[in-house]
Parts: sequence; structure tokens; C-alpha cells
Amino acid sequence: MSEVKKIAVLTSGGDSQGMNAAVRAVVRSALFRGLEVYGVQRGYQGLLNQDLRQMDLRSVGDIIQRGGTILQTARCKEFMTAEGQQRGAEVLREQGIDGLVVIGGDGSYQGANKLSKLGIKTMGLPGTIDNDIPFTDFTIGFDTAVSIVVDAINKLRDTMTSHERSSVVEVMGRHCGDIALYAGLASGAEAILVPEVPHDIKDISERMKENFQKGKRHGIVIVAEGVCSGEEVARQITEFSGIEPRVTVLGHIQRGGSPTHNDRILASQLADFAVQRLQEGDSGKGIGIIKGEFVATDIEKVITTKKSFNLDLYNLALRLAQ
Amino acid sequence: MSEVKKIAVLTSGGDSQGMNAAVRAVVRSALFRGLEVYGVQRGYQGLLNQDLRQMDLRSVGDIIQRGGTILQTARCKEFMTAEGQQRGAEVLREQGIDGLVVIGGDGSYQGANKLSKLGIKTMGLPGTIDNDIPFTDFTIGFDTAVSIVVDAINKLRDTMTSHERSSVVEVMGRHCGDIALYAGLASGAEAILVPEVPHDIKDISERMKENFQKGKRHGIVIVAEGVCSGEEVARQITEFSGIEPRVTVLGHIQRGGSPTHNDRILASQLADFAVQRLQEGDSGKGIGIIKGEFVATDIEKVITTKKSFNLDLYNLALRLAQ
Amino acid sequence: MSEVKKIAVLTSGGDSQGMNAAVRAVVRSALFRGLEVYGVQRGYQGLLNQDLRQMDLRSVGDIIQRGGTILQTARCKEFMTAEGQQRGAEVLREQGIDGLVVIGGDGSYQGANKLSKLGIKTMGLPGTIDNDIPFTDFTIGFDTAVSIVVDAINKLRDTMTSHERSSVVEVMGRHCGDIALYAGLASGAEAILVPEVPHDIKDISERMKENFQKGKRHGIVIVAEGVCSGEEVARQITEFSGIEPRVTVLGHIQRGGSPTHNDRILASQLADFAVQRLQEGDSGKGIGIIKGEFVATDIEKVITTKKSFNLDLYNLALRLAQ
Amino acid sequence: MSEVKKIAVLTSGGDSQGMNAAVRAVVRSALFRGLEVYGVQRGYQGLLNQDLRQMDLRSVGDIIQRGGTILQTARCKEFMTAEGQQRGAEVLREQGIDGLVVIGGDGSYQGANKLSKLGIKTMGLPGTIDNDIPFTDFTIGFDTAVSIVVDAINKLRDTMTSHERSSVVEVMGRHCGDIALYAGLASGAEAILVPEVPHDIKDISERMKENFQKGKRHGIVIVAEGVCSGEEVARQITEFSGIEPRVTVLGHIQRGGSPTHNDRILASQLADFAVQRLQEGDSGKGIGIIKGEFVATDIEKVITTKKSFNLDLYNLALRLAQ
Repeated sequence: MSEVKKIAVLTSGGDSQGMNAAVRAVVRSALFRGLEVYGVQRGYQGLLNQDLRQMDLRSVGDIIQRGGTILQTARCKEFMTAEGQQRGAEVLREQGIDGLVVIGGDGSYQGANKLSKLGIKTMGLPGTIDNDIPFTDFTIGFDTAVSIVVDAINKLRDTMTSHERSSVVEVMGRHCGDIALYAGLASGAEAILVPEVPHDIKDISERMKENFQKGKRHGIVIVAEGVCSGEEVARQITEFSGIEPRVTVLGHIQRGGSPTHNDRILASQLADFAVQRLQEGDSGKGIGIIKGEFVATDIEKVITTKKSFNLDLYNLALRLAQ
Repeated sequence: MSEVKKIAVLTSGGDSQGMNAAVRAVVRSALFRGLEVYGVQRGYQGLLNQDLRQMDLRSVGDIIQRGGTILQTARCKEFMTAEGQQRGAEVLREQGIDGLVVIGGDGSYQGANKLSKLGIKTMGLPGTIDNDIPFTDFTIGFDTAVSIVVDAINKLRDTMTSHERSSVVEVMGRHCGDIALYAGLASGAEAILVPEVPHDIKDISERMKENFQKGKRHGIVIVAEGVCSGEEVARQITEFSGIEPRVTVLGHIQRGGSPTHNDRILASQLADFAVQRLQEGDSGKGIGIIKGEFVATDIEKVITTKKSFNLDLYNLALRLAQ
Repeated sequence: MSEVKKIAVLTSGGDSQGMNAAVRAVVRSALFRGLEVYGVQRGYQGLLNQDLRQMDLRSVGDIIQRGGTILQTARCKEFMTAEGQQRGAEVLREQGIDGLVVIGGDGSYQGANKLSKLGIKTMGLPGTIDNDIPFTDFTIGFDTAVSIVVDAINKLRDTMTSHERSSVVEVMGRHCGDIALYAGLASGAEAILVPEVPHDIKDISERMKENFQKGKRHGIVIVAEGVCSGEEVARQITEFSGIEPRVTVLGHIQRGGSPTHNDRILASQLADFAVQRLQEGDSGKGIGIIKGEFVATDIEKVITTKKSFNLDLYNLALRLAQ
Repeated sequence: MSEVKKIAVLTSGGDSQGMNAAVRAVVRSALFRGLEVYGVQRGYQGLLNQDLRQMDLRSVGDIIQRGGTILQTARCKEFMTAEGQQRGAEVLREQGIDGLVVIGGDGSYQGANKLSKLGIKTMGLPGTIDNDIPFTDFTIGFDTAVSIVVDAINKLRDTMTSHERSSVVEVMGRHCGDIALYAGLASGAEAILVPEVPHDIKDISERMKENFQKGKRHGIVIVAEGVCSGEEVARQITEFSGIEPRVTVLGHIQRGGSPTHNDRILASQLADFAVQRLQEGDSGKGIGIIKGEFVATDIEKVITTKKSFNLDLYNLALRLAQ
């Protein structure tokens, strides 16, 4: 493995909280290790537009606490073609850049994989609120997204308790139920609807009805967007029980806000590990943390494996939300 | 005017943040003035069910900071009939209660007005997030609701800036545009759609497009629910400009959460003033604050007047959001 | 009064939340009215250093929600001399700048007053968390500071209730007790120690003791820094009652954080009004809001008058905190 | 191992966020497994006072999100004697209670250990913000405490950046530096002073000075209370560099507030695991999570082992805070 001297970093796809902390850590870890480092603006699109600038210690000052990404992101159709990828690799080579850290979700990983095959050494950092990337327990942004959902449910709880009413809360996560699961367990939700586990809405509806009769003063159902809409769940609950839950769709506020300390720390750790691997000459890897250990997995494998679901946690949530 | 010795307090209609602070202040102000005071559970429904209990200093301990209402609220069809109102007055009289503070919105005020005509001395406190009650500059809960909307927009801003995108945020307020206006001014929203002022969506759409071209990195449109849905606004913006804004519907989280200090203070002041007026024998009044002065207005007048809209503030918002 | 065509804006003294919102509003209001506008970096020091740059609409984009001030502040001894003031006026005149908006506390106002006498048209905006400037009900930053104190006390309350303990909280405000008063009323503090009202610590201590015996589960005493230190208050309470309160000194976190919507709105309103007055040729005024009306008072009068204290609010707080 | 049928739960020592979530999970997990469960009020003191009440599903409704502990805590000298412990065991036996879950720090663990030796089956849950209990990566409350510190530093950063100043922040943790470490890494603190690692204040002071000269706009030093006071650190920095940092002592607000989702989830998991072990007849164990696995360690060993320090994380923090 030949040594890398000059690397670039970009953020791609949907943004997530902690991306800035990751950018900061890539830059400072690289500088610490004696590498030069460039920031690419607006993801792969910016790469094709040659929108790069050299970064120093101060370029990433005062950003660790900020949501969003100072490098911005964008969708880029051209980079999905072989020609686009070829050009991307050329832009980097022209600048003498032989390593690239890509922060984003699975779409972003695919691009990193292509560039790796074209001779650019690449590392993928899991930057998405959805926690849907395998070979890592957590993605960067997930902790903040859950905290936002839980904070919103704290607020709903006040008004529900006053009215003895129920709520359906639709959360993000694409095909992954983790935001729903973690927020649901932490909020004492009565039902958590996730794509990974089949549910019986008739049974849930009847249980809610019984619980109100037993004196429970509110009922919360969380539904991951990968299952169906919150409106649809509410409609079915009304059909089976007569209860008319209110629906809250949290939407993109789940992607904003200052990252939690956990996301900032995770981003710092994974970024530092990625730069280290890159410097050692490794390429085409997705970085993650599994049970406290940092791991680098072939991106090929990352993008073809389905994230597993924590059934123990799911069952615990049900057991405690009586 | 005969003196009042024993009063009751209830919360009615949709709950709002600060209702607990108001209940606390009614109870403690009454006790301070040597009155006995009862809490009615679940609004007018609880009154008909004779669900009352005597309150002491400790009954309202540790609630000033809580959202919702410890007295709970409920809708009550029976109380909308003359028979129901008659029975409500009787329940109070049987308990020797000759005064009642009703905390709620205009529906609640109507009930208080009826009871006043039936000989119960009543005071209405404006408890609603909507700020739609006239003869008061602010209602209890409005400040907290605006703070929640502004906090949500802070989060949206991060993710919008990263993507150079725009958002439509639908907020509550029923027929009143104040939540939209205050949150819009405080968030630097590019457009604020309220029921009180006609808008030209074509013009707004074109302005958004221009602003993006001039380098503005995000665009926020706030729409009060009294105008139309956020989805509808987004659809029209897309039609006129090609921009595809994301839609966030904040829903009932606007009604929850710990009240701001302003709502707690306002609730305390208005409640104290209401108890004082009641003790002096006044009745059938809606309490409010206008330019820093406490006022008591005939409920009759309150419920038949339309809240005026602060056009100066609206124009300032437009002027600054360039 | 001759017309002003080109103005500058600076922030001075201790920073406060909402200063950025004020800077934004000065700039945009000026541009809207056809004026040119310059930002001075680092207060009067920056003025002497000729550290000015022209501002456009985008210079103040995305700052309304940020704490601190993009123009920064600094102390400047040189500007306290007649020579320094003379030079400051010259720097402005050399740039063709004939108007200046100064955002800050009373020290900053004094500078504005001097410049006014030297022929520069000046307006002072009350930017301080202390609420210690007369001829305005509220200063920019005060609302946010109170919200931070109240949020901290919310947290203390949890742990105090679990332990049945008491706390002394020392808050800012210099010689003004308003932060203590507003936060104390909003938090249900048992005692509020402010410079404007004498207190009897023996009486307070005994009342706390009695309250614990009557079943109150926590006791909060708020002390304004202008009275004495929190440590000193705790020591005296222990002496008179045996109770050992914990002491919290909130310090400079009271000055940070995203401004509340109220501070953003107040800043926007006052700044717009200041620019309007400046354009009309007025000078040497401190801008404020009194009972909902915007007022411009001779700075001379502002800096020689003592802010009055709201005794009604103070008595209400005591009445309700039983 | 004989089977347990009736258990009790108590919280002891300093309270921490998530204790309520742990109480809820103990109660509901016990009921789910067919056990009877009692709540002991005010820790070991309440045990000696026979202050117990049976808990059902509703006893722990609506508490998962609340700071503090509904069971309250207290110090108890009597329980530190052999007689006191004997009596405690008797009180439990008289009620037919053969299992006890103790939620607290190491002092509380000692009590649980004694009771275990007296034949009561006991489990310790690590409830403290200090993260100073070995054989668990995290204690219940630690995540929330760190989040509060980080939020406070976010606020300080605004005002520091405006003034180009530095701050010393003193945080809790007793003899453990973890709150300082995690908050310091997440906040980009320039120096993190912990009891586990020696520091050179002269070197730190000079580095701060250089950084200001290089254009860094603020400097944050975090000091764990186990090292020395924040005041002392500030004094030394001034001595070596002339810089005069402001000091913030966060104090007991670090112990309050609604628990983060992580603390709620951790509390739920550990409590469920403790009840399961108790039901299986195990005793005298401290429950923890190590690299994602739940573990039960002899309390004897827990209270005689020193928590290890994460040097990798510490070094990462230094590496990135340049």
C-alpha cells in the first residue's frame, strides 16, 4: 500500500447533525498526521465543478457545534454515470489528491466505492440520521435525531395528558426503524411501528382503548416512515377503536439543530480512524463502531448488506410500556 | 356588589402552556386574600359531574413550570345547553361557591358569560396559544408556542442551508395569524401568510427564486393554518417557480412543553388581577393586558369583537426579510 | 436637521443576545431606506483602528438567530479621552459617514453622546442583559438571560425536590435586580434578593425552615449580583436556620445562546426605529420601548437617570411563592 | 438459589437523571415477570422508617421523562452501622420482601452489599452523573450531565467569541474526569483537566496565548472538580499568560433536567436485567454495560476497583482541539 499525502473530504446526500464535527476531525486529524487536506463544496457535484479549497486548522474552527455542513451537499446525477466518476477521479488526481473521505449515506458510499476502483483511496463515514448503514452500531446524526423526536414527544405528552388523548407520531428513518425504536423506548410509547417487525393494528387499537379504561392518561404510537404514514395509522386506529389520535409529522426538523455530544464524539472518533486508515494506504472501506470497537468494512459489503434490527430492545420497549 | 367568599377555578377547551401557572396564581392569590378556593377537574364537564376539590397552598406546588393543566380539560356538549348551564350554576351554589375563574379560549368565555347571567360571578382568563382573544395583547401560552415554532425553524435552517433549499412551515393559530407573524419576524421568514392580510403566491414564488439567484442560501415561508395547508402553499410555489419546498406541520407540539417565563409571569399577573376583581364583586369580565395595563372587559364584548392585527409588525417583518 | 446618507453600526461593551438581530435590522432598514451602511468591528476600538466595512443585505444573512455579535465588542480606553472621541468622529467623517447606531449598555451610550456633540448623528440601542437602562421597559438580551436562568432553575428543582433541599442562585444584573425579579417570579422562588429592596435574611431563613416543616419540598432563593454573592447568602441562611443551601453561580452562560423570539423582535423594532430617527436627522437619543410605544430619549437623560424598579411585580412574586 | 417473589426498589445518595426511568423499569419488569414490587421512599432512611408502598403499573406512569426521583433520596447515618443494616433487613423480611434493587452510587452499593450478606438478595444499579463506577461503561445520569455541560459551553462560546476571551468551566465528577473528558471533547475545549492525567498549567497557558495570536477567537478550559477549583485554574492561567479567563461553576444544574433518551434507555435496560437476575436468585451484584453487553459483577469487586480512564479519547480530544 502506497502512502497518501494529500486528501480531500466531502459531505454528500441528505445532511445530518455531526457532519461538521466529522469534517473538523478529518481536517485536524489529517493536519496532525502531516497530510494536506482539501474541502470539496457541494458533494460530488462540487467535485466535478472543481470546487475545492485547501483547509487549515482555522477553516474548521467554531463548527463542531453547528448543525448542517459547512461543505454543503447536493444531489449529482452526472456522478452516477461512469463518465462522471472518471472525471471525478481525474479532478482529484490533477490536484495531486490521492485520498478522499466521503461523509454520507449509502448513495454516497456507492460513489466512494467507484472512486476507489478508479484508484483514489476512499473512506466512507456513516453520516445520516437514519441509522440504516450496516457494520456500525450508530451513524452520525442518529443520536441527535432521536433526541429531537423525544423532545417533541415530551411536549406532546403535556397536552395529551391534559386532554386524555392519544397521538400518532411519524418519524424518519427511510427503511430503518431505529429512530422509531429508540425514541419509542425512551418515550414510553405504547406501540412502535417499524418496517422490520409486522404489527397488528387491530390489537394495538384495542389495547389503547383498554389502557384508557384502566386509567392511562395518554397513548403514544410511533410509526417509522418506512411503514406507512402517520395519517394512515391514525385512520386505522379510529376504525378499530373509535379513538381519534392526533397526528404529528416531525419532518426535516429531525435533521437540524446542534449535534448532541454523542454525535460530535462519534464523528470525531470515526473521522480520526478513517484518516489513519487512509494514511496507512487502505481504501474502499466504510468506517463504523461495533460494540465500542472501530471497524473498517469493505464498502462493497456495506452497501449490499441489510442492517440488522435490535429485537431485544424492541421487546424491552413493549414490556415496559404497559 | 356583594362580596365573594368561595371561588372555583377551571381550565377549559384546548390546553395551553401557562395554564398551570394561572391555576397556581388563582389558588394562592385567593388564599392570600382570605378566600376559599376549589379546583374543578375536566372543565365544564367536571363541573356537571361535581368533580371539585378544595385547594390549599400545596395543591399547586411545583406546577408553575409544567405544561398542560393539572385540572385537565374536556369538551362538554351538555354545558352548551341552557339546562346544562343551569345545572352548572346549581352545582356551584350547592357548594356555596359564588365566584368562578375560567381559563380558556373563546368557547370557554361563552360558558363563563352564561354562568355570570345565572348569578355566579365569573372571570375569564385568556388561555390559548392562538392569541386570538381581543382586549388583551397576549394570551397565556402564545409566547411558548412562538418559542417552539422558532426553535423548530432554527433546526430547519441548518438543514436548508446545507442543501440550499426552502421550507414551508404550517403553524397553528386558528383564524389568527399571530403565531405566524411573531415566529416569522423572529425567524427572518421570507414570507408570512396570515388570514388577516391577502397574499400573492406568484409574487412570493418569484421573489424566492430571485433570492436564491442572488445568493440567499435558504427560504422560509410560514403559513398560519387559518390561510390554508402548508402542502397547498408548497404546491403553488412549485407551480409558479419550480422550487420544491419541504413542508413541516408542527401540530400539537406547539401546545406542549414547559411555559416560558413570560407565559408564567403573564398567567400570574392576570390570575391575581382576576381574583382581585372577583373579590371586589365584579363579574362577567374577560381579563387582559393592553400596553402593560391590566384590563377587565365585558365578556359579551370580548366574544363579539374581532382581534385586531399588528400591521406595523407585519410590515417590519417584510422590510427586514430581504 | 440635515439628512443622513451614510451610517455605521457598532456593538460595544458586554455582548448580549439579540445584538446580531439588531445589527441585521439596522443594516436592512438602512438599505431599505436608501442609506449606505457600514459595520464597525470591535466597538469604539475598531472605530479608532478604522476597521469598517460596507454592509449589504447578505452581510447580515443567517445571523438573526445567533448569540454574540458578528461585529464583536471590545473595551477601549483611548475612546474615553477627548482626543480619542475626536479621532473617532474624524474617522467617520473621512468615510463620509454622518450617522452612527451604537448597540450596548450605558458605557456605550456615553460614547454615543460624545460623538453626537462632535457632530456625528448618533442613536443608542439598549443592548445588555441587565435591563438596567432607563426609558425602556426592556433591553435587548434581557428576555434571553431570564430564560436561561429559569431553565437552570427548572433543572435545580428536580434535584432539590428529590433531596428536599434548598438552593441559592446568584444571577447577573449589575446594580439592577430585574433578572432576579423576573426569573424569581417565573420560578416560584421563595425569596428574591435585589439591590432595590432591603431584605431581612433572618426572616427569610426562618420562613424557609417553616415551609420545609409544612411540607414544601424545596426552597429557592435568587440573589442579584448587585446585592452580594450567593455564597454569602447561603452562609447567612445556614447561620439563621441550620439549612445548608447549595449555591449556583450561573455566570456568563447568561449572556450566551440563541436569542429568544422576544429579543429578536425587540431588537428588530428598536433598530428600525433608530434608523428612521437617524434618517430624519435626529441625534443623541437612546431608543426604547415603554408600554408598547417606541421612544427616543436624550442620551444625557438616559445616562443620568436611575432605572425604576417594578415593585408590583416584586410583591406579586412574594404573594404567590408561599 | 431460591426464587424471589417480592422485591423492593429504592434510590439512594445523590440523585441523577434517569433514576425515574430506572424505577419505572424495575417496577414494570417485575410485574411483567409476576413479582410483587414495593417502592421505598427516601433511600435507606425510608427503609428504616418502614416507608414502603406497593407499586403497580400506574404508580410509575408519566415519570420516564422526569428528572430527580419520585422515591426521593436521603443520607442515612444509622444505616451505616451494623445495627441499622440489621434492622433494614428485618423491615424487608417482615414485609415478606426478599429482593431489593438499589439505584445509586458507591455509597449506596455498600449498603446493598451489607444487606446481601444479611440474606436479602440485592442488585445495584449505577445511578450517578459522575460515571465513577467501574464495571460499566456508563452510569445512569452521565449522558444527561454531559449534555447539560455541553449546552452551557455552547452558550459561553457565543459570548467568548464576541469578546475574544477565554473561559474556565468547572464540572462535577468527584474523583472521576469523565464529565470533563466527554464534554471537553464534544466542545472542542483547548484543555481538559482531569484527576487521572497530570497537567502542566504553564504549558496550557502559553498554548492559549499562542492560539489567540494565531487567530483563535476563544479558548475553553474544562476542569473536573476532582482536580481543583475553576477559580484556582483561572488564577494560574493569569499568572503564566496574563490572560484573564472567566470562571463558570455549573454546580447542581448538572444533576437536573429531563434525562436524555440514552439515559432513559440505559436505565430501562439495566433495570430489566437486574430484575431478571434477582428473579433467578442472584444477589450482591452491581449491574453494568460493557461494550454493549450487560454484566453483573460482585459488588465487593465493584466498590474496591478504581474506574479506568479512557486515554484514547483524551488524546483524541487534544489532537483535535488545536
